[in-house]
Amino acid sequence: MRPKLMKEFEALREKNVMDIKKAKTEGKRVVGMYCLYSPAEIAVAAGAIPVTLCGTRQDPIPAAEKVLPRNLCPLIKSSYGFAATDTCPYFHFADLLIAETTCDGKKKMYELLAEFKPMQILQLPQKQDGVEAADYWYTEVKKLKNRLEAEFAVTITDHDLRDAISLLNDERRCLKELQDMCQLKPSPISGMDLLTVLFLRGFCSDKREAISMVDNLILELKDMVSHGLSPFTAKTPRILLAGVPVGLGSHKVVQIVEDCGGSVVGFESCGAYKAAFDQVDVVKEPLQAIAEKYLRTPCSCMSPNQGRFELVVRMVDEFKIDGIIDLTWQACHTYNVESFSLKKYIQEKKQTPFLQIETDYSESDVEQLKVRIEAFLEMIR
Amino acid sequence: MRPKLMKEFEALREKNVMDIKKAKTEGKRVVGMYCLYSPAEIAVAAGAIPVTLCGTRQDPIPAAEKVLPRNLCPLIKSSYGFAATDTCPYFHFADLLIAETTCDGKKKMYELLAEFKPMQILQLPQKQDGVEAADYWYTEVKKLKNRLEAEFAVTITDHDLRDAISLLNDERRCLKELQDMCQLKPSPISGMDLLTVLFLRGFCSDKREAISMVDNLILELKDMVSHGLSPFTAKTPRILLAGVPVGLGSHKVVQIVEDCGGSVVGFESCGAYKAAFDQVDVVKEPLQAIAEKYLRTPCSCMSPNQGRFELVVRMVDEFKIDGIIDLTWQACHTYNVESFSLKKYIQEKKQTPFLQIETDYSESDVEQLKVRIEAFLEMIR
Repeated sequence: MRPKLMKEFEALREKNVMDIKKAKTEGKRVVGMYCLYSPAEIAVAAGAIPVTLCGTRQDPIPAAEKVLPRNLCPLIKSSYGFAATDTCPYFHFADLLIAETTCDGKKKMYELLAEFKPMQILQLPQKQDGVEAADYWYTEVKKLKNRLEAEFAVTITDHDLRDAISLLNDERRCLKELQDMCQLKPSPISGMDLLTVLFLRGFCSDKREAISMVDNLILELKDMVSHGLSPFTAKTPRILLAGVPVGLGSHKVVQIVEDCGGSVVGFESCGAYKAAFDQVDVVKEPLQAIAEKYLRTPCSCMSPNQGRFELVVRMVDEFKIDGIIDLTWQACHTYNVESFSLKKYIQEKKQTPFLQIETDYSESDVEQLKVRIEAFLEMIR
Repeated sequence: MRPKLMKEFEALREKNVMDIKKAKTEGKRVVGMYCLYSPAEIAVAAGAIPVTLCGTRQDPIPAAEKVLPRNLCPLIKSSYGFAATDTCPYFHFADLLIAETTCDGKKKMYELLAEFKPMQILQLPQKQDGVEAADYWYTEVKKLKNRLEAEFAVTITDHDLRDAISLLNDERRCLKELQDMCQLKPSPISGMDLLTVLFLRGFCSDKREAISMVDNLILELKDMVSHGLSPFTAKTPRILLAGVPVGLGSHKVVQIVEDCGGSVVGFESCGAYKAAFDQVDVVKEPLQAIAEKYLRTPCSCMSPNQGRFELVVRMVDEFKIDGIIDLTWQACHTYNVESFSLKKYIQEKKQTPFLQIETDYSESDVEQLKVRIEAFLEMIR
């Protein structure tokens, strides 16, 4: 009942690494990014390959804990650990890192990361409205453009930026279309397969190739739907996974939900819907349009963060959600504190059952999580 | 061997509460503040009494944990708990709260705090250099002035601001002079007494009265010195307590150091030297001068935070420090991550023994802390 194309996506694991190695030997530049606030369009316009470097695996964490506190978000420790142990090919090949002052842990970790690679730290405002915040951010985005021009000895024209906007808008379009397939009841693809696709296509050196793969998968899913094929039934509880970013290696909650008979039909997180639902305006001055789009990102590092509450409610409706699991990585203060307000908001607007889970990348709490998640699914069934 | 005036300072506990109650009945306004970035001069210029609201006690924390995550800084939980339980007279009497986007925990907690009181959240940049950060911050400081004028129906003139600057510069002058008395070997005042003075005078409604009390204490200490009186000997290990803010109720590490035979001669934290070593320029346009001074505050929420490293090294020299204890409240990511870099910096510049302690406001680890601190003092003796 899995789409046949999943094999092709799974093969990306090896292919992506070989592709980036090849691109580097051909003189291509690579720009590493950690957050959804990183305006990838500018890297693309500079002729570079943008790659996401957020760590999603447990393996490098012990090495990171020699420098970083144990009581810190596993994503930050994993990211630093990959850099410190030089075990991530994408970090290894990166010519420059882009990062933003999003959360305390990342911000302070970046100070240590600067030892390994040249970095451009963008000063991100902590709020999204008001002309001062917009201007402050625009200046930072402009500085990034200047830095990339200087670093890679290129000139980034408005034409280059428009081309990059068009490409990345198309990427977001296909990623949204793919995720929106899960609005069907039952969803034609499991949450684990969806996550695998979203995650692995993110490391493709050639964005056009990745878009075409995703478009083909959408066609296959439509075909499956027309034949009534799905891994689930119309009665399978439909879960929205909200909160922190999840990837392969940090997927245990998704796996547990589906092992326990649920269907994860939506990921609100920044590797998934949050990255796809919004587009860069194609009419405005390109750098301005890019700055505006990225500042709108509804991350919990913003205060207030009304946009996320509205996005979650919208997803509850559109994806016909039976229950929300709000995931917090251990020691992620912003998502953790915000979860209280999100729950309150959901209770007022939708009464959708809500479960907050705080965990890390280790396997130590898997049995405990199974018990909680089974009970949650039982309640909403 | 304690200064006689300590009795007068200890009496402030009761007196301060009665004074603020009296001031309120006389129609005075009260402005509550949480961080050293709050420009108290503007509150004073608006005719209001500025009070610091950061919680330093364990009692309200269980109430806070009904809303906030357990894995959060005790200072934040204590501050929120005091508000939620209405057990802090200063919070109770506050007409308006000023807060800044300093750390993740505070920023997100303030969203919840806004339920209790009107608030003005100042958008603090995450770095201190560059014209954009300075302009961004200046605009926020100006917005605060406008808000206080509107809220209290007053006009704040440049003359008012200059008077407030002069008063608060004098307050910082006396607080620095007091702390600098501890540069003498042995220090004429214990760390616990110094902390008591710094903490309790902070809640005085009448700043001139508090300044005069501190100046009298300095005179008494000078007199003690001339008679060779001190609670310590020239051989007592001299400790600099660096890191997070400490107050009465969150003083356990200070108490343990002195119970174990050490002398805390300096507090780098924002209730102590960090609040006193720097002055507002009296020549520049007053609002500009205020904005500049506050943005210079070397807190770990800034990235990078070179100013704190320089301040610690300066204090090591001037206070003839034998050992540094760098204190981190549990889950304070910024001070916790920065401690690694501070230790490295100290090792390169000064080789002063360095101990990081991460703890909270509870008594659960007191015996364990005693063992670690005794061993540390033994090593440097």
